[in-house]
Amino acid sequence: MVSTVWVIGIGTGDPGLVTYEAAEALRTVDVFLVADKGEVKHDLVEARRALCEHFIGDTHPYRFVEVPDPQRGPDAERDTSAYGAGVRDWHGARVRAYAEIIDDLPADAQIGFLVWGDPAFYDSTLRIVDRLRAECGPFEVRVIPGISAPQLLAARHAIPLNRIGTSIHITTGRRLVEEYVPDLGDVVVMLDGYLTCRELVERYPDLTIYWGAYLGGPHEVLRSGRLADVIDDLVELRGRLREEHGWVMDTYLLRP
Amino acid sequence: MVSTVWVIGIGTGDPGLVTYEAAEALRTVDVFLVADKGEVKHDLVEARRALCEHFIGDTHPYRFVEVPDPQRGPDAERDTSAYGAGVRDWHGARVRAYAEIIDDLPADAQIGFLVWGDPAFYDSTLRIVDRLRAECGPFEVRVIPGISAPQLLAARHAIPLNRIGTSIHITTGRRLVEEYVPDLGDVVVMLDGYLTCRELVERYPDLTIYWGAYLGGPHEVLRSGRLADVIDDLVELRGRLREEHGWVMDTYLLRP
Repeated sequence: MVSTVWVIGIGTGDPGLVTYEAAEALRTVDVFLVADKGEVKHDLVEARRALCEHFIGDTHPYRFVEVPDPQRGPDAERDTSAYGAGVRDWHGARVRAYAEIIDDLPADAQIGFLVWGDPAFYDSTLRIVDRLRAECGPFEVRVIPGISAPQLLAARHAIPLNRIGTSIHITTGRRLVEEYVPDLGDVVVMLDGYLTCRELVERYPDLTIYWGAYLGGPHEVLRSGRLADVIDDLVELRGRLREEHGWVMDTYLLRP
Repeated sequence: MVSTVWVIGIGTGDPGLVTYEAAEALRTVDVFLVADKGEVKHDLVEARRALCEHFIGDTHPYRFVEVPDPQRGPDAERDTSAYGAGVRDWHGARVRAYAEIIDDLPADAQIGFLVWGDPAFYDSTLRIVDRLRAECGPFEVRVIPGISAPQLLAARHAIPLNRIGTSIHITTGRRLVEEYVPDLGDVVVMLDGYLTCRELVERYPDLTIYWGAYLGGPHEVLRSGRLADVIDDLVELRGRLREEHGWVMDTYLLRP
């Protein structure tokens, strides 16, 4: 049993995107639990370590415990209930791995999870922490919001995410094509490994896309334009960037 | 003509919610343009001044110029095109007021707008700055994202805004009733002066509401529960808080 679990939104890599509250939380944590997803996303693990060094330095002793991420089952199918069940199994395996580590920690240990962006947007940490609480006994959970990629996307393009009096819809690449109608308002797409919006070009060529990759990091790239005009270049660019850096994280806004 | 206009998201009042990048931007600005909305929202103007004092202190000379907010026409009607036109007229009057002030400033002045929350979510500053650029000649625009009320709402309730594999829809009180269907996913409602979700109770009594007011400020209040069970208390509470403080700002999430 531990006393407090901190779930800390750290923005997307640039120390300037961290809040004062998050920096203070970083300096409170004794043990950071980090999912080790293998070499592919190594840059991201390094960015997390660099942020901790930057903000904590030697003000407070802390350590990273890397927990090998369980193998995730295939989830190519678009059926939501099967997808949900797959995600839950995978969370269960992570919970057991974390629980084993927590069981060996002193009762007053302050545990921290570092969340890329904001824990509120498409991040599983809070669900895992809930299950961890069921497994390891009661502890306090403190959540620190962080600047997320869609917010940076808007800031870099110097646009609001909504138009006057309309809505903002945030969805995933998985759902986009099935779900898209212009009435949704301005649509932000996250977790899209394929630029799924290419499948909307025929029906909605006049959508404007605002796209950004590696937002807040040293490789940041921005593009915008009429969807039908820019999609081919974007697909090519995204493939090239992924090859060059070994990974790519991007997000985009579709505006009618 | 001025050199740079900074649009700075400052979170919702608590200095801990400010990012390092925002703090640095605050220390760069020479003149902050602040809309004076009269006494009603005086607390918010004071909170902005307090943040500036906290982060700038005497590191950099700066001043606040309060610009009386033009009278806003009635916009009770729900028709979106009339509403949009009304908002645009009102923005035009603000632009002219700001332009007059900017015309008197030295050419290297750094202008700042302080935005409650994040400039990307239901804030008109970026639209006004675009029109200002057309009026006052070219200047650089730098946008600094900030922690918004929906993010704090999620953090305080220790929940993500989405469920596994579903969408997040962010809308206004004005649109909610017309637009709402559970297929939208988890719905965040902003700019709702009336707790419009009360009109959904009959159709969707089993929705869960996560509500928060004065998020990030000293008067923060949270409530959650089954919509049909809690709505009457919420309406009563919101009215009482508004009376007590002279104003209320709140936001909520509806989860199927």
